[in-house]
Amino acid sequence: MQGYAATGIQELAQAAEAPIGSIYHHFPGGKRAVAAAALRESGAAYIQLLPMLLDRHADLATAIKEAFAAAAEDVANTGWANMCPVGTVAGEIADTEPELRQVAAEVIASWVDAGIRYLAGRGLSDADGRAAMYAILSALEGGFLLARAQHTAEPLLAAGRAVAAYVSALPVTAPA
Amino acid sequence: MQGYAATGIQELAQAAEAPIGSIYHHFPGGKRAVAAAALRESGAAYIQLLPMLLDRHADLATAIKEAFAAAAEDVANTGWANMCPVGTVAGEIADTEPELRQVAAEVIASWVDAGIRYLAGRGLSDADGRAAMYAILSALEGGFLLARAQHTAEPLLAAGRAVAAYVSALPVTAPA
Repeated sequence: MQGYAATGIQELAQAAEAPIGSIYHHFPGGKRAVAAAALRESGAAYIQLLPMLLDRHADLATAIKEAFAAAAEDVANTGWANMCPVGTVAGEIADTEPELRQVAAEVIASWVDAGIRYLAGRGLSDADGRAAMYAILSALEGGFLLARAQHTAEPLLAAGRAVAAYVSALPVTAPA
Repeated sequence: MQGYAATGIQELAQAAEAPIGSIYHHFPGGKRAVAAAALRESGAAYIQLLPMLLDRHADLATAIKEAFAAAAEDVANTGWANMCPVGTVAGEIADTEPELRQVAAEVIASWVDAGIRYLAGRGLSDADGRAAMYAILSALEGGFLLARAQHTAEPLLAAGRAVAAYVSALPVTAPA
């Protein structure tokens, strides 16, 4: 994955095995509209991983630590592939593509909202769930970035252990 | 800041107020060589902030939390500017520019090594210092990314509180 600026509409057409005219027919806004749709769709798909991964362990801190370890294994097994285009595209275009930045902001907000609801089911208050989700997403995005740059899983594993320890200390009430 | 792919050698020459020939004279490798030098120089400058920021408080967890709060204030006050080109360039080019990825990996490794030395002076073992540095850098890079995407300081503040709580629980010996 080569980033937003480096990807032309011709390459998008080749990747989709579609004529360029067909891409412009479905996305009159061109490359920017294709990117916006891709951010929204991948964002909606990724957040479905949250309950899938975190339901595996009754202890929330263990679940978070194991989810980061699974992400670290995935990124290593794929040859350090870009696991979160939402994050890398947002980082690249935040200062130059206001429409796409807005789309990325909405995707991230939808992740935080979904996380608050999930964590409420595991006994966290909305305020703690919100803080935990921002801490988890920061650790995950930053961990992906450092792991891909250094070709080592170590940053993701360390980030996961840190955020799991933080969440384990948050007060938990009986789930609703 | 518009990313690596979107920046041409002409723009670099304009920004430096230098003729293009002069840029190729000093950087025979062209744009890639300019970017490598910029990553190395900004990387060396940034890590000098670590002791400057963390020396402000005798309590390490308070120092980390306050450093993230200062970073959050900076990113808000600059209109959500890109505070860490090392991170954004690394995220953009990790899969496509192996030489620049290697430079980014070396810069990050130098940050971790400098952090281990600094944290040893505050009583952390080398292993804990290394884990703490990866957790801090992941939280910071991920927090910057989310803050710039959402135009809010909240992710950086939450990431800073989480990593500060984690570090505060690490065992501390009397500084050497």
